[in-house]
Amino acid sequence: MNQQMSKCEIFSLSDTCAFLKSHDNYLILTHCSPDGDTLGSGFALMRILEQLGKKAAVLAPDGIPDDFIFLEKKASEYEVNTIVAVDIADDKLLGTARAEYGNQVDLCIDHHGSNIKYSKALYVDSDAAATCEIIFELAVSLGTIIDKSIAEAIYTGVATDTGCFKYSNTTDKTHFIAAKLFSVGINASEINRVMFETKTRAAIEMEKRALSSLEFYFEGKCALIAITGKMLEETGCAKSDLESITAIPRTIEGVLVGVTLKETEEGKVKVSVRTHSPIDAAAICKNLGGGGHMRAAGCQIKGTVADAKKQLLEFIKEALI
Amino acid sequence: MNQQMSKCEIFSLSDTCAFLKSHDNYLILTHCSPDGDTLGSGFALMRILEQLGKKAAVLAPDGIPDDFIFLEKKASEYEVNTIVAVDIADDKLLGTARAEYGNQVDLCIDHHGSNIKYSKALYVDSDAAATCEIIFELAVSLGTIIDKSIAEAIYTGVATDTGCFKYSNTTDKTHFIAAKLFSVGINASEINRVMFETKTRAAIEMEKRALSSLEFYFEGKCALIAITGKMLEETGCAKSDLESITAIPRTIEGVLVGVTLKETEEGKVKVSVRTHSPIDAAAICKNLGGGGHMRAAGCQIKGTVADAKKQLLEFIKEALI
Repeated sequence: MNQQMSKCEIFSLSDTCAFLKSHDNYLILTHCSPDGDTLGSGFALMRILEQLGKKAAVLAPDGIPDDFIFLEKKASEYEVNTIVAVDIADDKLLGTARAEYGNQVDLCIDHHGSNIKYSKALYVDSDAAATCEIIFELAVSLGTIIDKSIAEAIYTGVATDTGCFKYSNTTDKTHFIAAKLFSVGINASEINRVMFETKTRAAIEMEKRALSSLEFYFEGKCALIAITGKMLEETGCAKSDLESITAIPRTIEGVLVGVTLKETEEGKVKVSVRTHSPIDAAAICKNLGGGGHMRAAGCQIKGTVADAKKQLLEFIKEALI
Repeated sequence: MNQQMSKCEIFSLSDTCAFLKSHDNYLILTHCSPDGDTLGSGFALMRILEQLGKKAAVLAPDGIPDDFIFLEKKASEYEVNTIVAVDIADDKLLGTARAEYGNQVDLCIDHHGSNIKYSKALYVDSDAAATCEIIFELAVSLGTIIDKSIAEAIYTGVATDTGCFKYSNTTDKTHFIAAKLFSVGINASEINRVMFETKTRAAIEMEKRALSSLEFYFEGKCALIAITGKMLEETGCAKSDLESITAIPRTIEGVLVGVTLKETEEGKVKVSVRTHSPIDAAAICKNLGGGGHMRAAGCQIKGTVADAKKQLLEFIKEALI
């Protein structure tokens, strides 16, 4: 156990409430490339602390994407003396804020079981579908009046991390929390529209080209999309837009192995493999020096897309037999 | 008021419970081109009635699509004497079952405010996001033990009609019901995967071609997709797959008017217009003899796709000024 880890105190829910009540002048850190859960957690916590009469502000190292119109950032105009990180499993994810705050996080509130315990204290609940679920519980324990702005921030995080209640991490608790948030009168359909139903023109253009590259192998049991450097350059598509494209091959009827190949600048091909039962994605990628989970894994292959395709299809063929 | 309408008795929740308890030998009708709500309602109600010691079966006039693997159809092997329609606003939607049962529906349970009251008795709650929400309430009132099969059927309907909790018809009640259903241990993520994340190869092929036809007008404020008869023929894409394609143009960033044109066999073009505030879709379509709602409307134009495009764009231009 390294020195950092030995210093991390594991908090319970009530420890966390006691900490929040006994400190002041907060700066809340969200992770780089922010998503709805880290931002929702940060802004909800800020308002919860304000109800306790505390000073609090949110720092988003990469700024706040335009999508999050309903969150309003506020600078800290006081001397910060309590630093809380939300939804940040690793201090590396502090991005540009790491140099200044990496060693100074007093409390981390997180739902990642993989949290590396870089903070002085940690409250982690890996059963929570989103850090915002934990923030909701803290709000209830602290006697917070859950107003529209807190409810919308928490809803944003819960909806983000559960794919709007579609993923397998969704529980009865998730829906129970959503019911409570709805009863406040949140504008959930507008949040969902912005978060889940708006695509940039670049993303649509990339989707078109990605679909044009779609190939089927092994009687339709394998579907493969190849994204070339040229496609990335010409569309100007953001990295985050590729996520949803990577999901496409496996969603096609009859497909057991969905593959996305992505050319990188260094003469390599980044491979993403997603499978349905019983195919083991990690086992396929292990053959090529990669790894991951049963249903989603990856590896990198040196060479062109054609090289990568050839090598990978051999191992997929074996896995399908 | 026609004769049919005058005969329809409006039931309350408790009237409906009393009816269900006092009758037997049920046949439950679902609507043609069935969706998750009519099927979920039908199968859940069947099992609720069975718990009351009744005989019940579900009739799906067009059969049950392969997606609904978790619903198991059962023929009625007894003399039917009570006919209940679920989620059927109009007897026309009985499809092939209309001739035999159109005038014989004893009770209709529905959430469409537009229900035309074709049945002898009607329990309608237009605030319910899905008929399955009503079925849940009936189950609770009847003291049903909500087992996994009932919970999965109800969940299917609720998820279908709310776009998995994304649409504006979702309420705190919807989430509260989902929380109760989850607590039974349903396989919701598998249901969602099958219902929302599986596409046929024909649908993917159509999506590719539809995206290739995508055009932008008026500084990107209007996006237009054109589906030709040739595309329909060559892809073999199902009518239901076009629904999600029709949604694409409006989801693009900056687009206020999303248009989908579809060539029909009769030398006409079917136009679907979807808008964002403040553009009135119905007003645009009214110019061309159509109509609909503020955010979604339609019309038919005689001629080719090029003819339709030209006429329509004139009115869209006016609306955008």
